[in-house]
Amino acid sequence: MPMSDGDSVGTVYLVGSGPGDPDLLTVKAAELIEAADVVLHDKLPGPEILGQIPEGKREDVGKRAGGEWTPQEYTNRRLVELAREGKSVVRLKGGDPFVFGRGGEEAEHLAEAGVPFEVVPGVTSAIAGPAVAGIPVTHRDHASSVSFVTGHEDPTKEESAVDWDALAATGGTIVVLMGVGKLPAYTAELRDAGLGGDTPVALVERATWPGMRVATGTLDTIVDARDEAGIEPPAITVIGDVAATRDRVLAFLQNGDGQGDGHGDRGGDDA
Amino acid sequence: MPMSDGDSVGTVYLVGSGPGDPDLLTVKAAELIEAADVVLHDKLPGPEILGQIPEGKREDVGKRAGGEWTPQEYTNRRLVELAREGKSVVRLKGGDPFVFGRGGEEAEHLAEAGVPFEVVPGVTSAIAGPAVAGIPVTHRDHASSVSFVTGHEDPTKEESAVDWDALAATGGTIVVLMGVGKLPAYTAELRDAGLGGDTPVALVERATWPGMRVATGTLDTIVDARDEAGIEPPAITVIGDVAATRDRVLAFLQNGDGQGDGHGDRGGDDA
Ligand SMILES: C[S@@+](CC[C@H](N)C(=O)[O-])C[C@H]1O[C@@H](n2cnc3c(N)ncnc32)[C@H](O)[C@@H]1O
Ligand SMILES: C[S@@+](CC[C@H](N)C(=O)[O-])C[C@H]1O[C@@H](n2cnc3c(N)ncnc32)[C@H](O)[C@@H]1O
Repeated sequence: MPMSDGDSVGTVYLVGSGPGDPDLLTVKAAELIEAADVVLHDKLPGPEILGQIPEGKREDVGKRAGGEWTPQEYTNRRLVELAREGKSVVRLKGGDPFVFGRGGEEAEHLAEAGVPFEVVPGVTSAIAGPAVAGIPVTHRDHASSVSFVTGHEDPTKEESAVDWDALAATGGTIVVLMGVGKLPAYTAELRDAGLGGDTPVALVERATWPGMRVATGTLDTIVDARDEAGIEPPAITVIGDVAATRDRVLAFLQNGDGQGDGHGDRGGDDA
Repeated sequence: MPMSDGDSVGTVYLVGSGPGDPDLLTVKAAELIEAADVVLHDKLPGPEILGQIPEGKREDVGKRAGGEWTPQEYTNRRLVELAREGKSVVRLKGGDPFVFGRGGEEAEHLAEAGVPFEVVPGVTSAIAGPAVAGIPVTHRDHASSVSFVTGHEDPTKEESAVDWDALAATGGTIVVLMGVGKLPAYTAELRDAGLGGDTPVALVERATWPGMRVATGTLDTIVDARDEAGIEPPAITVIGDVAATRDRVLAFLQNGDGQGDGHGDRGGDDA
């Protein structure tokens, strides 16, 4: 599929890597990575997937040499530059490229620059993170909707774009990405919005990576559980009755152990 | 990975097929389907993926012979039965098994019956459907949350579990599954809840299947657009400013054509 005859503009593939387990790459993502001239990536695809890409064709746009974040403008410019050199370019993003991944901005930038691109959806950590911990984000008995939201904004800020009251009012599952640091703030917001302090909550760190960890609790207890387990980003927070499913199925859940691949620690880190 | 030595209880794999393009199967899903003794499925994985599974090991639990829906209890019972025969069983579901797929119920049933199971997340149509039509479900400039909701309930019913007012109030993208038939009802609800009649809306039918179709419009016009294009289930409805991204990127979007595989009709069905 990729072409790189040097004459015409190359295609940019906006590719989701899934949550980190190389087996959760799509067939197409695996093939495109293999065939690409260059793979532009950040850290989120995780050590196993990145470790499989030959050094020579990887370009880390997650951080600059000096440890600073690469501005999005640099990534946008670099994608266009490489495509104009006729390269076949994979822009590899953790999870799905269009879920809090700035893939939409990159697509718009490429279209403005006249560069053909293709979107290759991936398995989002927002669904797979809870799933491999035994938590369905929807459940006929418990949730007829699920909302994915970013947790990295300060919810007490006047101009916060996230309406926690409205999210609580949906009655559905709430999944927070980038939500480890601000956990105390938004769990408080959700209680103020009327959710019970006993609402089940789970944190899933590095889902499907080696060393995956899970901490469980309630809106009242999850901050302590986070601290005890030492949960760090990247992690998914899942809030709602569905989070309690884990307890009901854990004894028979085979994800995260028994696969002989060192993935995870089934329940061992539960608070 | 699968085992079927006939002595011990087999493992059930709750596997997501992705939206329908066989290349959007995960590497693991493809391997498990290959290795399984039996694949229990309904129609949602789509004709291409189902067509690749040998007849001899497929079991359609989507419909009974007589054309009736198979009760969930039958599927639950059959999964346990096959596992107890020592079979390695793949329960293949469209998209992701834990997104409106009753995968949670099946997991609970298996755990109650003492059957080991593993969850293999997939690419959900709720994200991939919009994505392959050029629509990111989140976008830094337009949406800091996205909610997935079922559209098959009657929103005017007193006991409707879906709170359209709250969903509108989130200010984020709303993605409706199973929402072709009730489109007139919930678009009306959302306008009543205060969303502008000019809010962009897109319908994506059979995303990544041969014959994929897209219809676009606004809360005011989408019902007519649906009827003109003749959109039928399965389709995804995406509501919010992000839906307008399609117009900005379509000229350079390579999904759905140019792949020589007959997927889709780029923009041809836009109203
Ligand atoms: C910028 S967002 C990108 C999300 C990504 N596009 C996706 O669909 O998974 C980064 C956040 O994704 C979540 N995340 C990504 N990969 C993860 C993983 N393997 N385990 C847990 N959380 C993960 C974390 O919440 C992290 O802060
Ligand atoms: C019972 S739900 C299952 C959803 C599935 N578990 C998923 O994650 O995609 C069925 C609904 O999914 C949506 N759907 C599934 N596959 C689709 C596809 N290829 N194109 C459009 N919509 C699809 C439709 O809204 C359909 O009514």
